[in-house]
Amino acid sequence: MSTPALDALLSAVPGLRLLTGPADLEYYGRDWTRRWTPAPLAIAQPSSVDEVQAIVRWARAWTVALVPSGGRTGLSGGAVAANGELVISLERMNRVLDFDPVDRTLSVQAGMPLEAVHDAARDHGLAWPVDFAARGSATIGGAIATNAGGIRVIRYGNTRDWIAGLTVVDGRGEVMHLNRGLVKNSSGYDLRHLFIGAEGTLGVVVEAILRLTEPPPPTRVMLLALPDFSAVLKAFTVLRAGLRLEAFEFFTGVALAHVLEHGAQPPFAGHHPCYAVVEFADVAESGEAAALTAFEQGLVDGWVLDGVIAGSDAQAAQLWRLREGITESLAGHVPYKNDVSVRISALPAFLADAETLIGHAYPQFEVVWFGHIGDGNLHINVIKPEGMAQAEFVQDCERVTRLLADVLERHGGSISAEHGIGLVKKPWLAGTRSDAEIEAMRGIKVALDPDGIMNPGKLLP
Amino acid sequence: MSTPALDALLSAVPGLRLLTGPADLEYYGRDWTRRWTPAPLAIAQPSSVDEVQAIVRWARAWTVALVPSGGRTGLSGGAVAANGELVISLERMNRVLDFDPVDRTLSVQAGMPLEAVHDAARDHGLAWPVDFAARGSATIGGAIATNAGGIRVIRYGNTRDWIAGLTVVDGRGEVMHLNRGLVKNSSGYDLRHLFIGAEGTLGVVVEAILRLTEPPPPTRVMLLALPDFSAVLKAFTVLRAGLRLEAFEFFTGVALAHVLEHGAQPPFAGHHPCYAVVEFADVAESGEAAALTAFEQGLVDGWVLDGVIAGSDAQAAQLWRLREGITESLAGHVPYKNDVSVRISALPAFLADAETLIGHAYPQFEVVWFGHIGDGNLHINVIKPEGMAQAEFVQDCERVTRLLADVLERHGGSISAEHGIGLVKKPWLAGTRSDAEIEAMRGIKVALDPDGIMNPGKLLP
Repeated sequence: MSTPALDALLSAVPGLRLLTGPADLEYYGRDWTRRWTPAPLAIAQPSSVDEVQAIVRWARAWTVALVPSGGRTGLSGGAVAANGELVISLERMNRVLDFDPVDRTLSVQAGMPLEAVHDAARDHGLAWPVDFAARGSATIGGAIATNAGGIRVIRYGNTRDWIAGLTVVDGRGEVMHLNRGLVKNSSGYDLRHLFIGAEGTLGVVVEAILRLTEPPPPTRVMLLALPDFSAVLKAFTVLRAGLRLEAFEFFTGVALAHVLEHGAQPPFAGHHPCYAVVEFADVAESGEAAALTAFEQGLVDGWVLDGVIAGSDAQAAQLWRLREGITESLAGHVPYKNDVSVRISALPAFLADAETLIGHAYPQFEVVWFGHIGDGNLHINVIKPEGMAQAEFVQDCERVTRLLADVLERHGGSISAEHGIGLVKKPWLAGTRSDAEIEAMRGIKVALDPDGIMNPGKLLP
Repeated sequence: MSTPALDALLSAVPGLRLLTGPADLEYYGRDWTRRWTPAPLAIAQPSSVDEVQAIVRWARAWTVALVPSGGRTGLSGGAVAANGELVISLERMNRVLDFDPVDRTLSVQAGMPLEAVHDAARDHGLAWPVDFAARGSATIGGAIATNAGGIRVIRYGNTRDWIAGLTVVDGRGEVMHLNRGLVKNSSGYDLRHLFIGAEGTLGVVVEAILRLTEPPPPTRVMLLALPDFSAVLKAFTVLRAGLRLEAFEFFTGVALAHVLEHGAQPPFAGHHPCYAVVEFADVAESGEAAALTAFEQGLVDGWVLDGVIAGSDAQAAQLWRLREGITESLAGHVPYKNDVSVRISALPAFLADAETLIGHAYPQFEVVWFGHIGDGNLHINVIKPEGMAQAEFVQDCERVTRLLADVLERHGGSISAEHGIGLVKKPWLAGTRSDAEIEAMRGIKVALDPDGIMNPGKLLP
């Protein structure tokens, strides 16, 4: 396929790798949402910051929309290209650029997969602590674009907290090196934090300076069986007070059933309403002792039903798989996903309201709850019944999302904790951000992307 | 004094406390820079967010410039009102609004002094860990406006890292509640981080939700005497590897001499070129043992000359006073202050270049070095010779700052680590931020402050 615009692109960026085959357009045109039909103009795979800059300048000249693209594991449609956009895949920009042992920073290209980042940090005896199940495919650039959270936020915070510098090509076609690895830098607006979580609507993140930290201490992993949501909250409160928690993830018995169907081993003889995977520091076995004390107290008080502590790394991995396997186990059912958050203190009241709402609104659907209780973050997955048309299913779910958004607004929550707004959450952004905020975002967008070529239609309603 | 504009303000905001006496205009019109002649229109002391909003709306209607004002301990002129501005003093908005033990957050009004924030957190058995010498007068709003750093950054990071939510009144007159205490919230541009460090040029920070943490562990404080800058770096590297450092502050013998002149007790019999105050965690005396080992190694290797470990809280406070008393001891000399940073790894090369430059450029002036080596942050204070005119002195110092800015640019540094840009650093911002960044900042400013009424003339050149 050749068009005047693409011909101009190839002469503006000699040697640019450009894909236009139907299989490539489909593969690079969608993310994990699977709700839109991919229809990009072409896929560019630049190999340098200069090439990215040249592409953006071409896009301005030809008024072509651009979709920055990492591992496309996103769940909000942020990387979908369904309207003749040029996809900028960072796939080939996947190298470590530098490691500095004094600064404890790792400089990388944005297309590097998260797992490769972890490995590179570990090779230097350090860690980059943001982690989530899609680590094998998700890229660091994508994690930055959504300010990804994941399973270690309770201890380490979000992606935002581990970025010492960013190189971006913004919608004006300008290359900016933001913060450049400085620890202290009070020299005007921190544009680095503006690009983190902007979902590619202000520009393309092309390189990052990642702040590293000590590897986690030795840990133990425990699985608890719990009678209900309030017991989950109780368990969290007691364990947080007595242990150094590295992770506290919960899921329901319904979620577990899906993972077991996919071949995992049942952790307990019986079935239980809720479960929590708890990872805690265990220096000199003090963690294990405290965990056992808390567990026994829970048995007496009735907020724990059963429990197991992994005795080996293999067992720990097995317990983790029960939680991390959920998304994959649901994938075949094309679930409708909510990713919501409230302040931790608002969880009990929010959970009660949300459970009532979901119970009334979704009696005909199976609902899978899981998430990061310690961060106030819940994932609510609705399973499409077999035989129901996808469009009809989504429409019905969106009706409930509207009600859920109202509940969230009442409890001061967010319609997107960690997946981003993209296309999926756009209709409900106004429940989480005020009109004044959205108007401010629009103004900022105009300043950095005057022609509106950066991921148009995403995030902003 | 009465003018049509002020009459309109008083009818727009009935009951607003407004000060117009000459002493008030002078007191509230300047900060610690003492370089500009205060000349504000008047001082407003609102008592609520609504009053602040009404003031901003009035200012837009009458095109009056506003200067948000906290404790005015700033060192860059960010709170100076020298051109008929209305000063918005947050002095009366100084209360704790809420404490939440589950979220571990303290909600406060922006005019609360830093020390009162510390006390309030301590009353709940927790800590807000940002700390610096001006804690008695500086307000939390001012700390947010400059993303203040201070003496605990090495362990806890900057102000930015401890803000879970901000309420601001922006230049449009809109009240925005940003992030609202959420741990996870990926719902568009994080405007909270835009206002942190914006020095009041986008709006007024009126309330903040502060994230609290565990109080620091028991610590010990040690003072080291060191032969030169490279020994300071060596000491930092060795101690960081062996101890949990809570603070690592350095100063020169010249700095110490000023503090001793102000009545402090000499810590050692002899005089030494450099000193470091080191505070480290000391659980079960393991910290002390490691510190002694490092100290003895330093004596053998020659990078340490002498040392003392405080045996009591009173002694620890005495050692800290040697570092924290520097600014006060210099105040009478009206020093010219540089507050610069580089990456920690760039310190040795930068220090060598800076020392050479300063030695050549300032042979006639006394130069006092101190700062936060562990954050790559140096304070370089030049002392005005007695009898020299202030204007002539500043002019001469600025000649050297221009050269220093070039050195900084070469080493990837920042002209302002923690004081902000304000009026003082504005001429050199372009060495730290690129033209594209400054242009982006201007665009953002227009979006949030379309009439340019928020602290005009500050930060942006």
